[in-house]
Amino acid sequence: MKNLYTDTIVAPATTPGTGAISIVRMSGPDAFSIADAVVQLKSGTISSSDAYTIHFGSVCTNGFLLDEVLVSVFRAPHSYTGEDSVEISTHASAYIVQELVNLLLAAGARFAQPGEFTRRAFLTGKMDLAQAEAVADVIAATTSASHRVAMNQLKGGFSQELAALRSELLEMATLLELELDFSEEDVEFADRSKLLALLETIQTHVEGLAATFRQGNMIKNGVPVAIVGAANAGKSTLLNALLGEERAIVTDIPGTTRDTIEETLNLEGILFRFIDTAGIRESSDTVEKLGIDRTFRKISEAEIVLCMLDAQSEESDLLDNLRTLFQYVDASRQKVFILLNKADKAASSGINKNVTAINNFVLSLNTKAELLTISAKEQMGLDQLKEALYQTEKGLIPNEDSTFITNVRHFEALQNASSALSDCSTSLSRGIPSDLVAEDLRRALSAINSILGTDLLDPEVILHNIFQNHCIGK
Amino acid sequence: MKNLYTDTIVAPATTPGTGAISIVRMSGPDAFSIADAVVQLKSGTISSSDAYTIHFGSVCTNGFLLDEVLVSVFRAPHSYTGEDSVEISTHASAYIVQELVNLLLAAGARFAQPGEFTRRAFLTGKMDLAQAEAVADVIAATTSASHRVAMNQLKGGFSQELAALRSELLEMATLLELELDFSEEDVEFADRSKLLALLETIQTHVEGLAATFRQGNMIKNGVPVAIVGAANAGKSTLLNALLGEERAIVTDIPGTTRDTIEETLNLEGILFRFIDTAGIRESSDTVEKLGIDRTFRKISEAEIVLCMLDAQSEESDLLDNLRTLFQYVDASRQKVFILLNKADKAASSGINKNVTAINNFVLSLNTKAELLTISAKEQMGLDQLKEALYQTEKGLIPNEDSTFITNVRHFEALQNASSALSDCSTSLSRGIPSDLVAEDLRRALSAINSILGTDLLDPEVILHNIFQNHCIGK
Repeated sequence: MKNLYTDTIVAPATTPGTGAISIVRMSGPDAFSIADAVVQLKSGTISSSDAYTIHFGSVCTNGFLLDEVLVSVFRAPHSYTGEDSVEISTHASAYIVQELVNLLLAAGARFAQPGEFTRRAFLTGKMDLAQAEAVADVIAATTSASHRVAMNQLKGGFSQELAALRSELLEMATLLELELDFSEEDVEFADRSKLLALLETIQTHVEGLAATFRQGNMIKNGVPVAIVGAANAGKSTLLNALLGEERAIVTDIPGTTRDTIEETLNLEGILFRFIDTAGIRESSDTVEKLGIDRTFRKISEAEIVLCMLDAQSEESDLLDNLRTLFQYVDASRQKVFILLNKADKAASSGINKNVTAINNFVLSLNTKAELLTISAKEQMGLDQLKEALYQTEKGLIPNEDSTFITNVRHFEALQNASSALSDCSTSLSRGIPSDLVAEDLRRALSAINSILGTDLLDPEVILHNIFQNHCIGK
Repeated sequence: MKNLYTDTIVAPATTPGTGAISIVRMSGPDAFSIADAVVQLKSGTISSSDAYTIHFGSVCTNGFLLDEVLVSVFRAPHSYTGEDSVEISTHASAYIVQELVNLLLAAGARFAQPGEFTRRAFLTGKMDLAQAEAVADVIAATTSASHRVAMNQLKGGFSQELAALRSELLEMATLLELELDFSEEDVEFADRSKLLALLETIQTHVEGLAATFRQGNMIKNGVPVAIVGAANAGKSTLLNALLGEERAIVTDIPGTTRDTIEETLNLEGILFRFIDTAGIRESSDTVEKLGIDRTFRKISEAEIVLCMLDAQSEESDLLDNLRTLFQYVDASRQKVFILLNKADKAASSGINKNVTAINNFVLSLNTKAELLTISAKEQMGLDQLKEALYQTEKGLIPNEDSTFITNVRHFEALQNASSALSDCSTSLSRGIPSDLVAEDLRRALSAINSILGTDLLDPEVILHNIFQNHCIGK
């Protein structure tokens, strides 16, 4: 393989100081010779070593042993970056890693930019851009669902879908060429309807992929669950009880939780992102009013809403409260759970009355809100609540290697492709000449290509944006 | 090599979630077969692979790809633990590492105890106990001096010194035996003086090693530097300026720094540990009095004392202050720097007067205290101060692979050996029978052996104490 780069990059690939082993990674045309200049093997050299072999050696600095190391040898193109690479394994000491990197820099390597190893893997053709972007997602994934989606993208599942789209678009382009050739013979109308049918198929495909973004985003970043209720209804207590730790400050003063707090909980492979909110009530306090505005916005973004009521309330107060809360909720779009809290403190007759009142209220609205009686403080009914949350969203766990868009950049590119295809349809319907239609088609193709990283218009800018948020050493 | 253990241990050897690569390490008789049960290689098996080779494979769980991994193969006895071992390299995802470890546990491995990999290295004879203890020191070392000392111990430098001691003690034991044989022939006195001479040599050797502890401890934990002065003399400002960050709270209220703060600074390879102290003044405040008691104790533990004075003071106030500070200082034992601070604010005539007064005071005491004029706030004179600190302690940087004791356990063992040797001398001088003298000698030998881990009396207890503070995976 031709070397795309003339320089050799180096960076720690692990965080030193915690654990037993640290890895320093080096990649580029001089990786072996630089390693040989710094690491003294017992016999032979790294340059003359076979691929996929490990070598014991020592590193000295100023005449003192810095560390005894293991050097793993990877030969181009069979390495992560596609270049000659070594991984040097040391004791997990920040001092040793820093000194070793300094020695490698002094011997001719350059300190890697953030994400530069993965960037090289892309530019040497080891992975396309969508795959390269998935590396960070795979590392960040904390649930089985998000891991599956990221791993599918890393292994090229998404790229295959895009490749299928590209071939459909190219078929379309070929048909347009054909029409152009035959246009003088007036066969235009028949071809145009065929083209429109194909276009519809492609558009469905593109929009289908784009539509996975909402779900993909929930898999990656968590299902947003808003906890709402009057001040002092026990929202923070519920959050703490669900998370099993003291995350929010709990006091008996109404309106304590001024800011929104977001915490995540992994329920059997699905991530839920809980949004504790300021109490909903009439308030003359300016800070609190700001909090309530924010609450409204947060609730509208939630997928699931937990409405908390106090089981000790009088029926009329409880219903007043419930009506107020439901002004914040869109029960047709959001899954609503009504939580009758503090059930440990309320008399069972009172609870029964309140349950009946809530059920009648829900029936009158013709919504599917579910009622659960709980005590956040006493951890009563929380397992049922967790199970209900899981049941609501268990469809999020991919049952097979299905593709979900989780990246805003990809979502926007698909929307651009969709918009270009719409323009295409309009032009075709209106009998606009084929060469102008072809221009719209090229825009759609370019949008798809931008996801994969092929035919980048301004590759440096796009690559910089993608890799700048990667860690050094990745 | 015979397997000492029948079980196979596994643990992450790196911290996942930060960086690019994570390593899971597994060691024990079934390391290869367990790895084969979990990792699917492209061809062949890990069990049939050569030592020091790397293999690309995939790990699946529940029918989904968990990750593509690299497996490094180490065959007994040529591994860290001396056992068959594998290192599995994954994406640096906490989720992947956790799932991979779970799969390896399910396939028959056991989760490693803290420090258990190093413990096995000791028990299979890959390193002695002093070397095993040095692993944690090597990882924790943050300066070239502490790294050199720890690496020397890891590579067996200390162990060689102890081996020399052991052979001297064994020679002594042999001579005692001889004396025992010849005792009936009344050659006792000549032999005893020879024995006493040898004993003195050994004792000198033991005490020489023990004496390196003070220096070794400073290399490892930093040279203690106390910053003392009247309240508001600028002690916290100096500490912040030296460290280049806002570490201590700085206010204009006298007596703000109630507790002692310790921060370290690496000056050209030597670690300095700064101890900011409560202001020294007459005070009726109980909390502050407690602080001043603590100050006194802290100052007495310091190797270097920085006495801060305000350059703006009247000469008489300044000398009063200085006299008070010198009550806390032992100028014969401690290196004292008198810092005339706030020089930016004081008139030069006032500074000159104060400098003369301080010099006369120092001369009158016949001490070697040095005077520096600085402004902590304006960063004036700080480079000179740093250079002076470095010059004071530069002897700490080992110029060759010399041995320093840095471990309290070793220090105590050497003290025990020394005490046993003293008893030996006493017994010999008093003409106590050789077999009783031999008993003292055995105690000395046993103390030396306990450092190396040979002939441990209660190995489980000692090993548990040593390894319990190691990280998991080490």
